[in-house]
Amino acid sequence: MTDPDDLPADDPSADAPEANPGARPVIRLKPKAGRRFLAGAPWVYQDEIVMDRRTRKIPAGAVVELQDPERQTLGLVAFNAESAISARLLDVDPGAEIDAAWLESRIAQALALRERLFDKPFYRLVHAEADFLPGLVIDRFGDAAVIQPNAAWADARAEEIAQAVIRVAGVSTVVLNAGSRARAQEGLSGETRLLAGALDGPVETPMNGAVYLADLMGGQKTGLYYDQRPNHAFVARLAPGARVIDVFSHVGGFSLAALAGGAASALAVDGSEPALKLAAEGAARSGFGDRFETRRGDAFDTMTALAEAGETFDVVVCDPPAFAPNRSAFQNGMRAYGRVARLAAKITAPGGYLTLCSCSHAVDLENFRGACAHGLRTAGRAAQQIRAGGPGPDHPSLPALPETSYLKALTWRLP
Amino acid sequence: MTDPDDLPADDPSADAPEANPGARPVIRLKPKAGRRFLAGAPWVYQDEIVMDRRTRKIPAGAVVELQDPERQTLGLVAFNAESAISARLLDVDPGAEIDAAWLESRIAQALALRERLFDKPFYRLVHAEADFLPGLVIDRFGDAAVIQPNAAWADARAEEIAQAVIRVAGVSTVVLNAGSRARAQEGLSGETRLLAGALDGPVETPMNGAVYLADLMGGQKTGLYYDQRPNHAFVARLAPGARVIDVFSHVGGFSLAALAGGAASALAVDGSEPALKLAAEGAARSGFGDRFETRRGDAFDTMTALAEAGETFDVVVCDPPAFAPNRSAFQNGMRAYGRVARLAAKITAPGGYLTLCSCSHAVDLENFRGACAHGLRTAGRAAQQIRAGGPGPDHPSLPALPETSYLKALTWRLP
Repeated sequence: MTDPDDLPADDPSADAPEANPGARPVIRLKPKAGRRFLAGAPWVYQDEIVMDRRTRKIPAGAVVELQDPERQTLGLVAFNAESAISARLLDVDPGAEIDAAWLESRIAQALALRERLFDKPFYRLVHAEADFLPGLVIDRFGDAAVIQPNAAWADARAEEIAQAVIRVAGVSTVVLNAGSRARAQEGLSGETRLLAGALDGPVETPMNGAVYLADLMGGQKTGLYYDQRPNHAFVARLAPGARVIDVFSHVGGFSLAALAGGAASALAVDGSEPALKLAAEGAARSGFGDRFETRRGDAFDTMTALAEAGETFDVVVCDPPAFAPNRSAFQNGMRAYGRVARLAAKITAPGGYLTLCSCSHAVDLENFRGACAHGLRTAGRAAQQIRAGGPGPDHPSLPALPETSYLKALTWRLP
Repeated sequence: MTDPDDLPADDPSADAPEANPGARPVIRLKPKAGRRFLAGAPWVYQDEIVMDRRTRKIPAGAVVELQDPERQTLGLVAFNAESAISARLLDVDPGAEIDAAWLESRIAQALALRERLFDKPFYRLVHAEADFLPGLVIDRFGDAAVIQPNAAWADARAEEIAQAVIRVAGVSTVVLNAGSRARAQEGLSGETRLLAGALDGPVETPMNGAVYLADLMGGQKTGLYYDQRPNHAFVARLAPGARVIDVFSHVGGFSLAALAGGAASALAVDGSEPALKLAAEGAARSGFGDRFETRRGDAFDTMTALAEAGETFDVVVCDPPAFAPNRSAFQNGMRAYGRVARLAAKITAPGGYLTLCSCSHAVDLENFRGACAHGLRTAGRAAQQIRAGGPGPDHPSLPALPETSYLKALTWRLP
């Protein structure tokens, strides 16, 4: 991909970083490349960078200076030649030091937003690019934080980040979660482990009047889906006196909020026994274990069986995993969302409320709405959409990276 | 447009309604027409209907049977040959009687949704098509209701609708509001007037901890913008201790909610002196008149002057009128939204919060986001989007008519 005319081997300035070992390495945009970066996105793709021998040798996660083809600086980036997103903007100031003080300043800025928004210290503290800490996710559970370093620069600084979170947010326990798919794309491995403090089982997490149990050491997620909080809250408003079913319940996000909102009963359906156990324990600790039931099983099979038995619910929620995490899965994903909508409509009582969610990047709001509308019509149900919700405000997004705001939650009344 | 092969003058069945004066008139879809209706939308456009002499004679607002080209019934529609939307679905049952009982049943269904969602009887009670009462808008202010019959069938039944609202919702006062632009498109005229009960000045309307004053007899709107309620509430969460500016404030929707949320001060800017007077009176009755100021003037000029004077605010809100109410205004509308974003960003303090709204049908969420992102970049401000809000749940929409959900409210933090 290297254009030899653009960066001749005998160009003395190109070798300057090697001639001066204290200076930062430099990477350079190809001519006319980097359109998205120049429009405000903090990313440069692999094929937009001049990949000469020297550039390829830069270790993954190194902090380098990004220049345009005319050698004008564009800022400091974290570089990873092996990642499709090879450069992630850290600071527009090329003289910035990416040290403990810099990390603390960025985390403090993120904390200020959350402290304005939430009464209790349970939230996504850092949401990667949108909090100007590219690839770094930090969820906070009171005195504990879970960090997901999903980019090489952050992975290399995991201990330093943990110390910064301890100092800025005052947490005592820090977990490094190594379970995200994004890490594999960056060539990162490793195990989920404690970096500081101690944990004594799942952490009680108060949200929307319920108590959830978050298993911070267990598995792929950081323990809880904070992004759905406003959508949980809306379903809770619909819940007084209702029979509720929460399909793909995980640890009971929607069903526990609905019970806190006054639901007569809630049934959580999930394929994971550990998740259902945490849900049941959360319901018990919230004081409404007697109104809560779980059923382990495939969501499609369970909804089909309920529909065939003629069972209906006043409030139905389906929050499936991403059926279309990428573009190649778009058609299959759309079909799956339509099928979920059809099955869910069949078990929604007349006058009941149906909430369907998608966390698929490749299916945008209009496509998701269309897939659901098709499913509702196939089920023979008229519908009034009463809300289109997105992620909570502790999951910001950048105007130039709108696709990182992937969560959609639509609620209808079905007369 | 009539296809003589489709509806020959000597077809006896075509003349059946005239032969039997008690029967309902029939209108018919042209061959292959009505695609949107058949996909679930409750509308048939003028050029999709066989417009013969008899059809043209049907009085505006008449209830007629809609048939497909093969004379199969598609339901009962309200007909208006003069409107671009010539037929609006009332009932899929062609035998339904559109009488007082029918109106009461539909209004009761709409009321049930609002009673589930709101503690106090202040809301949009009927949102037209999406509440299965096409073209009919009813806003409720406690014991008073304002009806906007924006389609001929509802205009002809205004008195009957008023009685139905009185019986179902228990209101005592009903205003007929004749000020909407939609009425002109249906060929409707008339004056705003009382249909029942009495009014003694503006009505106190509690929302989000503040008291608003709604002038039910005054002007184009029904008195208040209920659709922004969840967006007002979100801005209130950002407000503690903040200096707030509410540009295009109308009667103070965002500023009074922000003061109720703990804002240090709020400045409302609007071109309408009567609206600002109602805002100030609302602030006084809410008990925070001492923290509230108004400034009458053009929004662009006022923001420009504030920016030139170096004045900034911690929370900035701009909720302009629809800059792009229709497709032909799209380009100008996009430019206007970009300009609002640029000016508003200039008066947002570092670390402050900016909320921009659009009620333009022709500018969808992605376009609006793009126009705002452009304005923010022009102002030289980085931004984190923290929320994308829509209308409140008392403003439902139909899956097959997504364009009727027009309200967008985006909030960013500007570091």
